[in-house]
Amino acid sequence: MTGSRADRLAGLLERRGLHAIVVTNLPNVRYLSGFTGTNGLCLVGGGELRTFLTDFRYVERAEREVKGFDRARGKQDLLQDAAERLAAARAARVGFEDQALTVRQHARLRDALANGAELVPAGDLVEELRAVKDGGELAAIRAAAEAVTGIYEHLRDTGFGGRTEREVARDLEREMRLRGTEPSFPPIVAAGPNGALPHATPGDDPIPAGALVVVDMGCMVDGYCSDCTRTLASGTISEEAAAVYTLVHDAQAAARAAVTAGADCRAVDAVARDAIAAAGHGDGFGHGLGHGVGLEVHEAPRLSPAAEGELRGRSVVTVEPGVYVAGAYGVRIEDLVVVEEEGCEVLTGFPKALLEIA
Amino acid sequence: MTGSRADRLAGLLERRGLHAIVVTNLPNVRYLSGFTGTNGLCLVGGGELRTFLTDFRYVERAEREVKGFDRARGKQDLLQDAAERLAAARAARVGFEDQALTVRQHARLRDALANGAELVPAGDLVEELRAVKDGGELAAIRAAAEAVTGIYEHLRDTGFGGRTEREVARDLEREMRLRGTEPSFPPIVAAGPNGALPHATPGDDPIPAGALVVVDMGCMVDGYCSDCTRTLASGTISEEAAAVYTLVHDAQAAARAAVTAGADCRAVDAVARDAIAAAGHGDGFGHGLGHGVGLEVHEAPRLSPAAEGELRGRSVVTVEPGVYVAGAYGVRIEDLVVVEEEGCEVLTGFPKALLEIA
Repeated sequence: MTGSRADRLAGLLERRGLHAIVVTNLPNVRYLSGFTGTNGLCLVGGGELRTFLTDFRYVERAEREVKGFDRARGKQDLLQDAAERLAAARAARVGFEDQALTVRQHARLRDALANGAELVPAGDLVEELRAVKDGGELAAIRAAAEAVTGIYEHLRDTGFGGRTEREVARDLEREMRLRGTEPSFPPIVAAGPNGALPHATPGDDPIPAGALVVVDMGCMVDGYCSDCTRTLASGTISEEAAAVYTLVHDAQAAARAAVTAGADCRAVDAVARDAIAAAGHGDGFGHGLGHGVGLEVHEAPRLSPAAEGELRGRSVVTVEPGVYVAGAYGVRIEDLVVVEEEGCEVLTGFPKALLEIA
Repeated sequence: MTGSRADRLAGLLERRGLHAIVVTNLPNVRYLSGFTGTNGLCLVGGGELRTFLTDFRYVERAEREVKGFDRARGKQDLLQDAAERLAAARAARVGFEDQALTVRQHARLRDALANGAELVPAGDLVEELRAVKDGGELAAIRAAAEAVTGIYEHLRDTGFGGRTEREVARDLEREMRLRGTEPSFPPIVAAGPNGALPHATPGDDPIPAGALVVVDMGCMVDGYCSDCTRTLASGTISEEAAAVYTLVHDAQAAARAAVTAGADCRAVDAVARDAIAAAGHGDGFGHGLGHGVGLEVHEAPRLSPAAEGELRGRSVVTVEPGVYVAGAYGVRIEDLVVVEEEGCEVLTGFPKALLEIA
């Protein structure tokens, strides 16, 4: 990849016939500029326009973090300042991030652009860049994936020990922080029937023996996330549950084997979905197979029945089929992988064979 | 307050000539329905329309949490389902939350409303309800405020002890979790010049002796937040810094004394702002005096030079003037208070006299 991220964005603008873009989606602002605060925007234009705006509260942070942009201090509502600078740059066709700008912000920006510039929905341009990682990003994600593998090893060594879901979840978070990382989202620990809720909140009942326990967690390193799910057994489980585990395990392996640069995103999803449906559990897999991971724990590309396009090399995606048997248990197995020219590399090394811990 | 929250919202709709509203802003969805997941919306209409929609992942959670609404399972994009139900309810003028709905979501909803219903920006109606708390809400906020007072006592008893800002911040978070609460935002611990950054991130240098240390943190109880700032001294500080502390302390007391039902929001801000400006530090107070706190740590009403309207009884707001001397130090003192018919009640009881801890 050549040129700065902003230069590559400017290239995309040119192909869309846009003179400039207002980038307001914060992960995109961070990606372009390095800014980690919660109020900032980037103006990028075909010519020399590389302006970063933030308010009073973040001026000193921006001085430390923001590279490759002119830095300016705006009022707390930055859109007014943005409009003035776009007018000064004579940008007549201005892209905005329609997936991020609210209807109210859009109205304010439109009113402020008194010179009659045209506002054009141009969402996902930065997301498109973000979907292919550079070396520094891959290093951070790799470190975040190694960190979560370490936390699974800690869980294996500690066991459930009759603790509640919430106690186990707290311990996992604490262990992450002790090791110098942060959770990329609050860990999910869901035993038995709770495992059938794909987004369960850890509860206060002791984890019973002989249950399947879905553990879904990730770490964050330098702003980049990992995401990994394993389903563990708190003792011997029923034959039926073990068969579902094997089904998901094998579907996950098959889907992983289908991940490669150029693969159709829908087709990769279908590999796991068809295997699960063929075994009679199609209704129990209601979410997509996977999603991109980077500055956000859910980002482009998507692997789902509704996905479009092909996987590109150096994308980082999850592969996470699941079967959820309402009132009984759930099984989900999730790896984080880097898409390669031939196949993929698994970043989440914790074993996937069914593991019993007490 | 009589009637359910949804009934009161329906009353507001009637006054605006709206047949229904699509509530998508998640804290508003939680306020109306009790739902704590991350994908759900409410349809509320003048007649009997009280429908809650979520997707596959949250159906079981919604069964446990959502009261007073018909519950329905939609696709992951809930707006399509919402449009069908609005058409079935023959809602011709439909409000939407323009402060929350993105331009892309708005376009999708508009396209799905094939029957030509009119979409009307109707943001902040639920926020208006949320700005006045009921008894259960006040109890939760009170508990969250007592929790943060306990954490300040823990800090007072522990001291800075030569630790870094980050170590202290982590310990505060850990202590919150040990006591069964969660941070309502990541604690800020900012010593010396870092205290001049109103939104500093805790750093890795040891906190020096003789510095002013801004500590800004809050707890969460039953989804409700507290928010409290104290500026502590890590040993003897300069006379100049002590004078600034006294200035902010007295400005905070004066502003607090001005808080009462019926007070003009801008005028309350001006009490502190004028006192600070008269002492020659007007440039160093670049943020508003305060903000509402509830399900969100920043919500209505605002106390600032740009605020409109009057304070209402049973609102919960912060009172937090600050002076920031770039490159040297910052002082901010923040209480959380309940607005009463006569005056206000301070919920954050930790002392505000300058406290030296080692």
